[in-house]
Amino acid sequence: MTDSDPQKNRRIAAQDLSRFIEKSFIASGIPQADAAKTASLMTQADLSGADAHGVFRLPQYVRRIRAGGMNRNPDIRILRERTATALIDGDNGLGHLVMSRATQIAIEKARSTGVAWVGARHSNHAGPASLYAQMALPHDMIGLYMAVGSANHLPPWGGVDMLLSTNPIAVAVPSGQNPPIILDMATTVAAYGKIKTAAQRGETMPEGWMIDRQGAPLTDPRRAAEGFLLPIGGPKGYGLALIFGLLAGTLNGAAFGRDVIDFNADEKTTTNTGHLIIALDIAAFTDVAAFKVEIDDVWATMKASDRLPGVKEIRLPGERLAATMADRQKNGIPLAPELYAVLETLADDLGIERL
Amino acid sequence: MTDSDPQKNRRIAAQDLSRFIEKSFIASGIPQADAAKTASLMTQADLSGADAHGVFRLPQYVRRIRAGGMNRNPDIRILRERTATALIDGDNGLGHLVMSRATQIAIEKARSTGVAWVGARHSNHAGPASLYAQMALPHDMIGLYMAVGSANHLPPWGGVDMLLSTNPIAVAVPSGQNPPIILDMATTVAAYGKIKTAAQRGETMPEGWMIDRQGAPLTDPRRAAEGFLLPIGGPKGYGLALIFGLLAGTLNGAAFGRDVIDFNADEKTTTNTGHLIIALDIAAFTDVAAFKVEIDDVWATMKASDRLPGVKEIRLPGERLAATMADRQKNGIPLAPELYAVLETLADDLGIERL
Repeated sequence: MTDSDPQKNRRIAAQDLSRFIEKSFIASGIPQADAAKTASLMTQADLSGADAHGVFRLPQYVRRIRAGGMNRNPDIRILRERTATALIDGDNGLGHLVMSRATQIAIEKARSTGVAWVGARHSNHAGPASLYAQMALPHDMIGLYMAVGSANHLPPWGGVDMLLSTNPIAVAVPSGQNPPIILDMATTVAAYGKIKTAAQRGETMPEGWMIDRQGAPLTDPRRAAEGFLLPIGGPKGYGLALIFGLLAGTLNGAAFGRDVIDFNADEKTTTNTGHLIIALDIAAFTDVAAFKVEIDDVWATMKASDRLPGVKEIRLPGERLAATMADRQKNGIPLAPELYAVLETLADDLGIERL
Repeated sequence: MTDSDPQKNRRIAAQDLSRFIEKSFIASGIPQADAAKTASLMTQADLSGADAHGVFRLPQYVRRIRAGGMNRNPDIRILRERTATALIDGDNGLGHLVMSRATQIAIEKARSTGVAWVGARHSNHAGPASLYAQMALPHDMIGLYMAVGSANHLPPWGGVDMLLSTNPIAVAVPSGQNPPIILDMATTVAAYGKIKTAAQRGETMPEGWMIDRQGAPLTDPRRAAEGFLLPIGGPKGYGLALIFGLLAGTLNGAAFGRDVIDFNADEKTTTNTGHLIIALDIAAFTDVAAFKVEIDDVWATMKASDRLPGVKEIRLPGERLAATMADRQKNGIPLAPELYAVLETLADDLGIERL
């Protein structure tokens, strides 16, 4: 996400942001280890440029914890298990805790079986999809993640009842000399987080992101509640959102369709959020080192393509993420003034030191 | 695909079409059992409405077999294997033989492990993606299929070098009282098969399917070679095509990127087509009967959505496939006059009885 006016943003060092998030959670009653783990993952989200899925969500998480909508001391456990699968119950804990546990289980299983698929129910919003897909990379594995989004913003194709979310997918594939290839995308033209940040920044949206109930373009993000998001490729994006929802939600006994709780509007009701993670061991198919050379070759091939008039550069999925990460690790994470103000209020409210 | 002028189409009974395909293969030197199996799968493709992926491809397959571009007697075998994974070598046989074998292996493995992921190299065009995803359904499993398309028609986003194919995905999920939910989609706005049939029928294409090398809309399918397909959701569809290609191609040691052979233009070079199939055992996650009731409920919920002005009906992915299948099983498979003429020539050429 580009920053509306970079001049106005404050740059915060990752470790300072992480410590602030950790303190906020501890002040909200989350045990220290869980607070630290979630803070680290949320900071990683901000470092990677997922501005709508990092500290931006902190006030919302804290409100939900305080309202009793999230469990401070979840017993995250395996409900069903096979050699290469598991279904875990998140016991309504922070989504980051549930999904990092699920991913750990998937990686352990895949090391012997070659592939593992772990689903989760009774979880919560867990930040950007790429966080979990990426966890497979240090193990020379490919990670695939899908989730039911935390609010419905999408009708079935041709409809106006918002029965589907932006249900995202992320896939992470390791490379050799280049950054990993990381696809992280909503099945809608724009993720809802982008609409939220556009509204917070007072920006308008391009046509094609949303339509109203008559089918007319909707470009004012403050009117977002009057319309709905458009899926990529029309019926195809609808199909992907539906399928990802069935796999990450229905199959896991998690909420889908009418049962999805809008966690922007409701702070108390258990969301029963569903996700899934697949870990795939590259060594089960080919030599890992040779595979990474092949991925470097794919990088080089795509980058070298001739371009359409006016296009400066061909990008690989994950390339911007890596560049943003490098910049923010060095120069800090930019926080828009509006977000900074919200976090000051939060700090005062929780009785902790401001950022 | 809608028929350009249904009045002109001949309706052929499925069993007659299947027998014709089988005889064509036998006359081309394919062993009887393999000919029958491939004919049955190709006919199922036509029954399901995948008009660009059934008998439409027969003349091309036969040309390739006769030119030495496909192996009449492949030794399809497992190269690497783990509890939940396998990599199979198709030995350049008909893609239908390779992928039905791969799917069988995946289903057998998933029965105990919960999930299995089987990749294939040295395969060939295997018909519509949904054919293999659907094979999981009678086993109360969910099937997921991806493939590297058999010709590059898509540049990386912003580029003009055609380095990617329409790399499709299919996912099949069983229901109770309703047809299964079956998503089968190319990662481009239109599949290339649709452009081929439009050209054969003398139709024009809508804007948004293809652009030329200047970025201008291309609507004459006979000029298809001068332009390229557009991905769904712009960079998102590019990302999906890239990732599906890495998973179905590169990981399996199959062709991807510059190495993809255009099987429309080249009848001799081994294509080294890659695919993958995932079988997921529903019982590893939940009660199968209860799950099917849930999917029926999803059907009912989506169908009952209020609609945009002018929209008559909300459809589920797989709904049209089921309706087409029912119609064609009863009334026969419609063949356009142009295709019928091509098949007459093929029959004469092979010295077999015409359809």
